[in-house]
Amino acid sequence: MTDIVIDLNADLAEGYGRWVLTDDEAMLSVVTSANVACGFHAGDPSIMRRVCDMAAERGVRIGAQVSYRDLAGFGRRAMDVPGDELADEITYQIGSLQVFARAAGATVSYVKPHGALYNRVVSDQEQASAVAAGTRLADPTLPVLCLPGSAMHVQAQRVGLPAVDEAFVDRAYTATGTLAPRATPGAVITDPQQVARRAVALARDGRVTALGGETVSIRAHSLCLHGDTPGAVELAKQTRAALEEAGVRVEAFA
Amino acid sequence: MTDIVIDLNADLAEGYGRWVLTDDEAMLSVVTSANVACGFHAGDPSIMRRVCDMAAERGVRIGAQVSYRDLAGFGRRAMDVPGDELADEITYQIGSLQVFARAAGATVSYVKPHGALYNRVVSDQEQASAVAAGTRLADPTLPVLCLPGSAMHVQAQRVGLPAVDEAFVDRAYTATGTLAPRATPGAVITDPQQVARRAVALARDGRVTALGGETVSIRAHSLCLHGDTPGAVELAKQTRAALEEAGVRVEAFA
Amino acid sequence: MTDIVIDLNADLAEGYGRWVLTDDEAMLSVVTSANVACGFHAGDPSIMRRVCDMAAERGVRIGAQVSYRDLAGFGRRAMDVPGDELADEITYQIGSLQVFARAAGATVSYVKPHGALYNRVVSDQEQASAVAAGTRLADPTLPVLCLPGSAMHVQAQRVGLPAVDEAFVDRAYTATGTLAPRATPGAVITDPQQVARRAVALARDGRVTALGGETVSIRAHSLCLHGDTPGAVELAKQTRAALEEAGVRVEAFA
Amino acid sequence: MTDIVIDLNADLAEGYGRWVLTDDEAMLSVVTSANVACGFHAGDPSIMRRVCDMAAERGVRIGAQVSYRDLAGFGRRAMDVPGDELADEITYQIGSLQVFARAAGATVSYVKPHGALYNRVVSDQEQASAVAAGTRLADPTLPVLCLPGSAMHVQAQRVGLPAVDEAFVDRAYTATGTLAPRATPGAVITDPQQVARRAVALARDGRVTALGGETVSIRAHSLCLHGDTPGAVELAKQTRAALEEAGVRVEAFA
Repeated sequence: MTDIVIDLNADLAEGYGRWVLTDDEAMLSVVTSANVACGFHAGDPSIMRRVCDMAAERGVRIGAQVSYRDLAGFGRRAMDVPGDELADEITYQIGSLQVFARAAGATVSYVKPHGALYNRVVSDQEQASAVAAGTRLADPTLPVLCLPGSAMHVQAQRVGLPAVDEAFVDRAYTATGTLAPRATPGAVITDPQQVARRAVALARDGRVTALGGETVSIRAHSLCLHGDTPGAVELAKQTRAALEEAGVRVEAFA
Repeated sequence: MTDIVIDLNADLAEGYGRWVLTDDEAMLSVVTSANVACGFHAGDPSIMRRVCDMAAERGVRIGAQVSYRDLAGFGRRAMDVPGDELADEITYQIGSLQVFARAAGATVSYVKPHGALYNRVVSDQEQASAVAAGTRLADPTLPVLCLPGSAMHVQAQRVGLPAVDEAFVDRAYTATGTLAPRATPGAVITDPQQVARRAVALARDGRVTALGGETVSIRAHSLCLHGDTPGAVELAKQTRAALEEAGVRVEAFA
Repeated sequence: MTDIVIDLNADLAEGYGRWVLTDDEAMLSVVTSANVACGFHAGDPSIMRRVCDMAAERGVRIGAQVSYRDLAGFGRRAMDVPGDELADEITYQIGSLQVFARAAGATVSYVKPHGALYNRVVSDQEQASAVAAGTRLADPTLPVLCLPGSAMHVQAQRVGLPAVDEAFVDRAYTATGTLAPRATPGAVITDPQQVARRAVALARDGRVTALGGETVSIRAHSLCLHGDTPGAVELAKQTRAALEEAGVRVEAFA
Repeated sequence: MTDIVIDLNADLAEGYGRWVLTDDEAMLSVVTSANVACGFHAGDPSIMRRVCDMAAERGVRIGAQVSYRDLAGFGRRAMDVPGDELADEITYQIGSLQVFARAAGATVSYVKPHGALYNRVVSDQEQASAVAAGTRLADPTLPVLCLPGSAMHVQAQRVGLPAVDEAFVDRAYTATGTLAPRATPGAVITDPQQVARRAVALARDGRVTALGGETVSIRAHSLCLHGDTPGAVELAKQTRAALEEAGVRVEAFA
């Protein structure tokens, strides 16, 4: 065995009423941290309860996947929400998940911003500060899952919340270690073997090959997997298997 | 002083974003229990936080005013929600308020169904059972504020939740002790002195004069005041003053 | 060729933002009438526009699939909406679709209530009357697709709207010609050959075999197909092929 | 009489269900153009119908007050909506109002973006282009009410829609003719006589005194009045009276 440990997180509970998106049960057998949608971009109360119950049963950590209030846009449209309003919306979402986690005998143990909010708080200090404030009001011990070097990382730490850096196994990076925009050719990686290799390189070596061929250093405690595309579950399973074969322990972050 | 004690409750936080309905601050100086809307019929995260903060500061008890999901209808349109879905929606709403109450140094200490849901669970055992189940999942010690003799009263007690009976000071009763439908002439009482007299009769004697002139017995631990009409705050203040003058202690129910 | 003509209708555009439900393009190659969701239970503006464009291109008739306002419940939870409010909600939905139909060079040429509203207006004269009134305000020439013998049929005709009766090819009927409740064993028919046989019997003979084996008479101008289950498109295609083989002309109702 | 003509517009129908904001009836006796909310930031179907009916009766022109989809934020939070999605959302809103206008014997005869969208399309060419495209799809003859010199003005004209410039009687301007930000001291003018004087100067002379005392030229065909503050109706009436006394004809723009 080895001392190298990595967390695997994925967005779950992203259905709403009649609509289903992710195979939550299958993904819960792969990941160690479940980012549970809280009703603002996806996630109705019943799917939240079911995913909390299943996660608790399997020992998967539960996190609040907080978002702008935007069902129609699935939280993918950035919004200029004033800081105090945004903080309150974050607190509300965390609270709505805490009750289901507690009922399942677990707790909400981290927060991860979703979609456009995630991208916005990479650089927007005011919104990042609001997410940190809203999280802190809900629970001053909650870590925030974020991009290394982001405004979110800075603002979480500023108010005493742990910032946990994550990396993306199926997204290309630029030479400076930022994510290549989705529109860039090659920005989304779909080949299972390539994804698995990148996961191992990120977890074991803290490195990944950038779009231009450069080796860049990305120190991450968690790797983000996606569960909302055809073949996503299979890809996630192969990624986990590759990590374990490479001697990496897959465990929820400390 | 006297041993007669009565709680006064009112629906608060019933604005939404730009829209305001009740004078929450003024009503919090009158009532002992605040039924806080949780976002399904009214109540955005910011108004929920503000009302929790103000209530905690004034020592007013905080309750979750749970509703059908119906912003457009203000929760006044009965819905055939399947029991398990309804229970989850109740749990979600309570959780979303618990986080703000806790942040204010208080707790959610009771639940009161709102509008059409309140009326439905007077007689609908299945929905009443769902409200009880959803409440219990959130907190198995939470009392439910309800109509004496209602299905809600029965179902709350069936799962071990305290049922706290309430009476309405500005609504007429029939000879059998049920509320006269709003459409009935004289069903809504607006004269301040009459309201105050009825409040005293309900609190001190457990009695009220029915529409037909009969005296009916109504045993209530809480009286419901309304805060959403012109003059409501003044009426509430006079009612409280009349109770205190009559030697009734106005306190949150035990 | 024959004089027997039948319309085939299906619920389309039932996605919402990121969520997709039906294979609209494939179903539009089978049906002659498209029931387009209008945003109250499903159907965002973009999917409405796309389905209108595709329907117009293929000569498929466009209908407004109107619903209770209930995204979270997909319009499957009956609501006690006051008549005047319900009428306005119906008008609003029709208007929101008319603009896209018109932009596609077509028109909204019928209305079909969805889900719980469809079931409610089988017997609720007040809500059926509201649907008729709201439809009439939008366009006094619009036919309403409904169950034979329903309150909706009666109320549509009462205000001068054509009532077009439909039958269900994959749902079992009772001996009296009503739909067997979904919970009844055998209520939903999934065998493609059986569905096709029933479609032909309904279209050609106006008859279907009831659950108890009795032959019941169902006079319908349209047959409802479903597009939201796995294999639905294939089933729809086979049904249409069987009708055409049996000499039935598949055309939009007059 | 004179040849100087000015239109007066105001935001109406900005309630939602139980919540009321503006005194629509009173404002309809003052303005010549009613910007009717269409359900995305405010405006339920019933209030839309009522305001259309009242406007038609009084000969007040009906316009679609289109917005981002943001009830919780009253359309005051800018959103990064992709152009094609935004265009479809605009078309949907216009369609939902056209049906009520038509039922009232009138038509939707212009479009005015609301709140954050209004401010965004002052400079955002892509969103302005989307608003123009969505409007054009609904009706290629519809004028767009906008700020002089805005991206909206440019993009409307680019696709053949008339752009109608408006000015604000109760907002301060900078020396370059842009609106002073609300946070600037003196940015919002509340003194009735000052508002009336500015209205006359804008309508008759095409001029207004800027914050720094400079005279700036603002050519507007419509003046925007506000109806959502205490005293707003009175202020609107005085403004109209002052215009008429000054010999200005108050009429809907051509």
